[in-house]
Amino acid sequence: MSTRQKRYFLAESEIPTEWYNIQADMVNKPMPPLNPATKEPLKAEDLFPIFAEELARQELNQQDPWIHIPEPVRDMYKYYRSTPLVRAYGLEEALGTPAHIYFKNESVSPVGSHKLNSALAQAYYNKEQGVTNITTETGAGQWGAALSYAAKVFGLECAVYQVKISYNQKPYRRSIMQTFGATVEASPSMSTRAGKDVLTVDPNNQGSLGTAISEAIELAISTPNCKYTLGSVLSHVSLHQSIIGLEAEKQMAMAGEYPDMVIACFGGGSNFGGIAFPFMRHNLKDGKQTRFIAAEPASCPKLTRGQFQYDFGDLAGYTPLLPMFTLGHNFMPANIHAGGLRYHGAGTIVSQLLKDGLMEAVDIKQSDSFKAGVLFARSEGIIPAPESCHAIAAAIQEANKCTATGEEKVILFNLSGHGLIDMSAYDQYLAGNLQDYEVTDEEVARNLAQLEKVI
Amino acid sequence: MSTRQKRYFLAESEIPTEWYNIQADMVNKPMPPLNPATKEPLKAEDLFPIFAEELARQELNQQDPWIHIPEPVRDMYKYYRSTPLVRAYGLEEALGTPAHIYFKNESVSPVGSHKLNSALAQAYYNKEQGVTNITTETGAGQWGAALSYAAKVFGLECAVYQVKISYNQKPYRRSIMQTFGATVEASPSMSTRAGKDVLTVDPNNQGSLGTAISEAIELAISTPNCKYTLGSVLSHVSLHQSIIGLEAEKQMAMAGEYPDMVIACFGGGSNFGGIAFPFMRHNLKDGKQTRFIAAEPASCPKLTRGQFQYDFGDLAGYTPLLPMFTLGHNFMPANIHAGGLRYHGAGTIVSQLLKDGLMEAVDIKQSDSFKAGVLFARSEGIIPAPESCHAIAAAIQEANKCTATGEEKVILFNLSGHGLIDMSAYDQYLAGNLQDYEVTDEEVARNLAQLEKVI
Repeated sequence: MSTRQKRYFLAESEIPTEWYNIQADMVNKPMPPLNPATKEPLKAEDLFPIFAEELARQELNQQDPWIHIPEPVRDMYKYYRSTPLVRAYGLEEALGTPAHIYFKNESVSPVGSHKLNSALAQAYYNKEQGVTNITTETGAGQWGAALSYAAKVFGLECAVYQVKISYNQKPYRRSIMQTFGATVEASPSMSTRAGKDVLTVDPNNQGSLGTAISEAIELAISTPNCKYTLGSVLSHVSLHQSIIGLEAEKQMAMAGEYPDMVIACFGGGSNFGGIAFPFMRHNLKDGKQTRFIAAEPASCPKLTRGQFQYDFGDLAGYTPLLPMFTLGHNFMPANIHAGGLRYHGAGTIVSQLLKDGLMEAVDIKQSDSFKAGVLFARSEGIIPAPESCHAIAAAIQEANKCTATGEEKVILFNLSGHGLIDMSAYDQYLAGNLQDYEVTDEEVARNLAQLEKVI
Repeated sequence: MSTRQKRYFLAESEIPTEWYNIQADMVNKPMPPLNPATKEPLKAEDLFPIFAEELARQELNQQDPWIHIPEPVRDMYKYYRSTPLVRAYGLEEALGTPAHIYFKNESVSPVGSHKLNSALAQAYYNKEQGVTNITTETGAGQWGAALSYAAKVFGLECAVYQVKISYNQKPYRRSIMQTFGATVEASPSMSTRAGKDVLTVDPNNQGSLGTAISEAIELAISTPNCKYTLGSVLSHVSLHQSIIGLEAEKQMAMAGEYPDMVIACFGGGSNFGGIAFPFMRHNLKDGKQTRFIAAEPASCPKLTRGQFQYDFGDLAGYTPLLPMFTLGHNFMPANIHAGGLRYHGAGTIVSQLLKDGLMEAVDIKQSDSFKAGVLFARSEGIIPAPESCHAIAAAIQEANKCTATGEEKVILFNLSGHGLIDMSAYDQYLAGNLQDYEVTDEEVARNLAQLEKVI
């Protein structure tokens, strides 16, 4: 670690009052979600049975670049925002790199990750509409913890389907949700049709985000005055997460720098979009040439090895068809510790941007991610979430390129969460027991071949 | 929770540059530590074999009220300080109390507790002196995690004896220490004379802070260029922790209030002294009449049911004799989850203050502490450490008195750490499986009767 340090905070008056909606500035807009039965583009009203109405409208809003943040949400943001932008001198010194490395520290939120930025917004809009119960899925448990907290803030009942592998690997996350008053069930469960279908075929199935989403949607549809919420993938989630990048932009200006690269880990796209899109608007509109790099796990490589096509967002096919880079909604990711990255597809905005060459993606092996995480912990003093370790590994790769060339590039990455609830994974890494998982080309091709071709 | 909120931060230039040493302002100074063999008062030099010299001098300094904080320590403080002072509107509303409740949130430090304030100072002074290795004990693991981090900052090797019950109850804390690069051993261990002596008599002994201290001292004495460090009890630790209260004093002024009560949980006294002493100086010097309340576990009640006399700080009797409220150094506390409070004695400053009626103590049952912790989590959104739950329970008791009388008293308590690594304890509480432990008067009397009478 270094006793040199620099953290940048915003004054309360500088905390953004609007979210940024990149859809409005994209030349090629994301293609619309389709009704699976008719293949007709969905309107916001079609989403009302599942989502709060304002969230459905935000989802499909391709006109308005700026969306006002409601006051009660801003009030709650002030509990933990602005989050610090940190110059990572310790990491730079450990790497011996001339690169300037910055990270945005979203781990300081009360629930330990960026997920709260959208959870508060989603709980608020549901409450405003008179909804009393909300459901969701969670992978690593970060989103579930955030939604449990947000539900308590706005007086909603909350039920969470936690992917079984995480439920067992990370029992503390379940406890956190329960301490905040939520109901938590391991997915696949016997409480839904979707869960039963999986367990009937494979009683030891360890679950996936795709399965848990199906279960949460099913519960929402079958419960009075209940709506479903999603922690990533969807465009309205990236919208809420734009607070990260909007703050970071002001904070980078305080540091007198502008990023050459913006890096984030990638599960469904919410923390990536959150930090990247506000900077990307200057590429789209002001001729900036920042690179945007999504770091995904090698065992779930939808961006680097998936295919762009219409697919379902969940296993059971309850969602609309979404235009996405996907490994196929039947893809069952390996049991890596970065549970938040175990998702078969990418959000529609990111998928369009990647298709158009406006961003890049890299895949990171599980062992490399933890190697990066331990180096970060020992040089910056923060134990990162397994998901965030992927961003750190990608940032280190880029910093090492700078070391080779001598270039003083400015690298910004998002530290999406802390890893204090994931210490069993660090245990395994430190003991040399961590496994890497390969996905074969055949497996990807076979899975994709099962999909109905819409485009 | 409440969307009303108020957090107070200090500008970087307002972060204190000096620690406060209450010994200088006490009319009745703490009696000196004694050499156990000669019963002669110790001089600083007598402590040099165990402690870094500057720490030994600070320990016995009864003259200087203000001690300059070295620049490298201040630089590291800036990573997480000032910590927020929070007006607990959510808790107030949940209680329906007219009291104004504030808490100082030390859980935001990189290691999740106030312990880092002293760990950084102790690691720094050892490094300055050319020490290469440091040892310590840890109860809940908060201190061990902090020292592991601080050792990494200043380039020291660190070995930690973790009380066995915590080592097993809280494996994640061990992992955190190891991730920061420290060596961790469960205590009692077979690696020291003191540990072997315990295990020979009682192979299933679950350890205590007193035993772990003996082991850590033994390792320090028998290792070249190695010193011992302690996370509480001693006066120099309270000195470093005074940063908490000094900041809180300025932050309460920002809020336009001054506390009628200052409350903290109590193990050895470091977080209590840290928040209380800076305010207490205005009782001692300026005629203020603030009440100071230490909240200890009912299962380890040295302040409320112990006896003031000279006793050893550790089980094996390696430490000097210290004038303290004690249950006897042979006292083996029940296996409560608040591992940081499982200590038989109180620091010499607090013991003198309690003897002189300048502060109060209350005991809190384990079940009451978690009841308070869950209410706090659900009303303020932060899951408190089991230790901190005791402070919250005491604060709630006082707030409820205000509800009965209608008085708008101002209550300040220290949230010494978060409980994210203690979720198994919350699990047990929520499942109704948490046990309360009674200490009988006979047990206390029998244990105290074994002590050699020095005063």
